[in-house]
Amino acid sequence: MKKGELTRSAIVASALELAGLEGLEGITLGKLAERMAMSKSGVFAHFGSREELQIAVLKAHERRFADDVLLPALSRPRGLPRVRAIVERWIDHTGSAGGSGCLWIAGASELDDRPGPVRDALVGMVRGWQRELMRAIAQAVEASELRDDLPPEDLLAELFGVVLVLHHDRRLLRSPDALARARRVADRLLGAAAAASRAPSARASRARRRPAEPRPARHRLP
Amino acid sequence: MKKGELTRSAIVASALELAGLEGLEGITLGKLAERMAMSKSGVFAHFGSREELQIAVLKAHERRFADDVLLPALSRPRGLPRVRAIVERWIDHTGSAGGSGCLWIAGASELDDRPGPVRDALVGMVRGWQRELMRAIAQAVEASELRDDLPPEDLLAELFGVVLVLHHDRRLLRSPDALARARRVADRLLGAAAAASRAPSARASRARRRPAEPRPARHRLP
Repeated sequence: MKKGELTRSAIVASALELAGLEGLEGITLGKLAERMAMSKSGVFAHFGSREELQIAVLKAHERRFADDVLLPALSRPRGLPRVRAIVERWIDHTGSAGGSGCLWIAGASELDDRPGPVRDALVGMVRGWQRELMRAIAQAVEASELRDDLPPEDLLAELFGVVLVLHHDRRLLRSPDALARARRVADRLLGAAAAASRAPSARASRARRRPAEPRPARHRLP
Repeated sequence: MKKGELTRSAIVASALELAGLEGLEGITLGKLAERMAMSKSGVFAHFGSREELQIAVLKAHERRFADDVLLPALSRPRGLPRVRAIVERWIDHTGSAGGSGCLWIAGASELDDRPGPVRDALVGMVRGWQRELMRAIAQAVEASELRDDLPPEDLLAELFGVVLVLHHDRRLLRSPDALARARRVADRLLGAAAAASRAPSARASRARRRPAEPRPARHRLP
């Protein structure tokens, strides 16, 4: 890395920390210059605008999120094992983040009413993440490991709900059991979404209730 | 209402609107004085502190929320019908709020890292709401209309997740199908939580698979 890139990365790392404490709107060139013992114009030289800096921070969060959650899960076999790995890591990431919480979730509230390039960047990243999860879900449906009568976007919404509630309960309510509950609920939701082939007893009992009798005559009439 | 109370209510109504646009932190005595065409000291005379004003705004939101969601649902019979009514109204309230979103949800992100009386007030209100919903769920479990092997706080978390996702998808992502999806997912979650008496065939088939045979002898030994 060249010196300029190093400084830029150091500024972004410091801004990411600041955003964890005070939100994306808490990132100002002045505060960053103070943290970095640089002049405001020095910080400005690396970014050009506060918005560019905020977007760089969102991207840094995205890289960290991918490293923590998505990439390790991609080493699991396609299908339900990979979906489970993603969800488990997502919950752990949200439930144990060193106190600052998820910048995307906090940023959603900050930015939802502020049109502009920072909001657009966040929306693009969240949609990108949803696409990754949808792909993993679709693969599990194809492999007949998840039910095909449950719209994948519904399962995505259920799982995203678990993560949002965890973030809320852990950070606002300081619930000591938020993490355990999130794991339990996600596990149950995935269980309910699992394809029936995973619960052969249900099929067997259905078969037993309906022996292969000939259909009543009227069904055979033209 | 005395004139002082009227003025106070008008200030709170204006602050509630302002909070919908700029968040709780966006409420300042200066901005409010401008909106109300009053002096800052005039606004200050009614509240004493910005925090007191912010708490008054949260309480105003609570009253509106109770009027919209909880009170109408309390006219439904106890048990699953009341739980369903609460959830339906909660989703409608979140999905159709005139654009400003839910102040409690937005406030959670703003306040979770800011200890103090405003945060305490919000936590108290959210817990109060959760208690109301838990009571309705517990009544439905008692009436054998909801499963008793599903912890009520888990069902609460699942339903709260639906609302948080709706808020997120509608406001940040501007998803046109967020509301329909929220209704569909909540309906499915409540269906899965409904007691087996609503699906008698499952019980019947279980009984058929295990006829009342005498237990093996070793179970009867001391």
